[in-house]
Amino acid sequence: MKSKLAGVLGGVGPMATVYFQQMVLELTEASCDQDHLDMLVSNHATIPDRTAFILGESRLSPLFDMAQDAQMLARAGCDFLVLPCNTAHFFYEHIQNAVSIPLLNIIEGTVSACAEQGAARIGVLATAGTVAANTYDIMCRRFGLSCIYPDAATQKQVTAVIYDGVKAGRHIRAKEMAALYNRMREEGCDAIVLGCTELSVAHRDLELHAAHPDVIDSLETLARRTIEYAGKRLRS
Amino acid sequence: MKSKLAGVLGGVGPMATVYFQQMVLELTEASCDQDHLDMLVSNHATIPDRTAFILGESRLSPLFDMAQDAQMLARAGCDFLVLPCNTAHFFYEHIQNAVSIPLLNIIEGTVSACAEQGAARIGVLATAGTVAANTYDIMCRRFGLSCIYPDAATQKQVTAVIYDGVKAGRHIRAKEMAALYNRMREEGCDAIVLGCTELSVAHRDLELHAAHPDVIDSLETLARRTIEYAGKRLRS
Repeated sequence: MKSKLAGVLGGVGPMATVYFQQMVLELTEASCDQDHLDMLVSNHATIPDRTAFILGESRLSPLFDMAQDAQMLARAGCDFLVLPCNTAHFFYEHIQNAVSIPLLNIIEGTVSACAEQGAARIGVLATAGTVAANTYDIMCRRFGLSCIYPDAATQKQVTAVIYDGVKAGRHIRAKEMAALYNRMREEGCDAIVLGCTELSVAHRDLELHAAHPDVIDSLETLARRTIEYAGKRLRS
Repeated sequence: MKSKLAGVLGGVGPMATVYFQQMVLELTEASCDQDHLDMLVSNHATIPDRTAFILGESRLSPLFDMAQDAQMLARAGCDFLVLPCNTAHFFYEHIQNAVSIPLLNIIEGTVSACAEQGAARIGVLATAGTVAANTYDIMCRRFGLSCIYPDAATQKQVTAVIYDGVKAGRHIRAKEMAALYNRMREEGCDAIVLGCTELSVAHRDLELHAAHPDVIDSLETLARRTIEYAGKRLRS
């Protein structure tokens, strides 16, 4: 069976798009190149900042570029799309409506993974844009879960890790990440969602997975769903 | 000035395509997403094996897929193309002739970088396909340099690192790589070219750069040329 061609609506941000592809490759059961799925990746770095638009700090909407990229990927033959950016899922319905191929939803996949793990109260570490868009809370209600966002001071630290850290090419310390996880545990969260792909990059670079099994990475969840949807096997 | 859209003819192999994008991002002077160049990446993993075709072990040619991908990327608006695979440069002229936008040549860029470093005798570590295609030797003559390929036993080890190692998702030891470099030094080479992107992946993962300044990575050379060609600045 020929596997489906995955279209990656990327560049938001560009490094997360690269890590997403790497995760897909590492999580696929493969012993040669041809065992992997085919991807067509738009790593469109110059798309205007998503959070700045959602927060009303900029009037430059990223939607036009993203809808156009979705249509370009569909025209080029993609069978389905993925958008490896939580913040940009504020525009999910608009992008999905712009094309006739399915767009997998990272928020739905991540909340669903939390529910499967038996979590009841999930803490969401994400951009201020994602928090303002409230996409995680809305999805959690559909699954009967509680959604907790950080307090204002903690959110400031999350934003600093994302913007002054990963997006600016500077390295993050493991202590900074653990402090964020601990804050959410103090709020009674039994699962902590990395709801921003830049946080996934930091978590992964620091190899924090084994020490923090209650942390669910939205980017990894999307990578697994992409492999399965394309018709390839997950590495066991 | 709007930067040029880079089309990446990738999937040959898929992990090298990911590393290429990562290198481009890391080598670009950028403090936010929008400082990076835009790339449209065809990570087409299922393209038939290049070396098997060049060596006559398989009649399945990868050229049809690669020429089609080049045309698809051009139609989608790419201003120029790069092909982050040395072996596939056997087909360079055919792919270039299939499109009207320029295709940067990794072999030319790498040999040119060796010449700039003052090298006279370069050792080429590459797939048996690249060796048989003789692309490096032909290019070296244009630059007035000598090109040395490994002896049969060493070439077997190079092939094992590429196929049984990186492409199969298994980790390579630093000792294995250093042994290959030393063999080429024993042959009097004053520069050693990583002429296969899978070797670049291993060299980079093992952080061998500082200990082996005479090793020139073809993938990194292409990443630098891509950034400059797109109109972005190299990180200083």
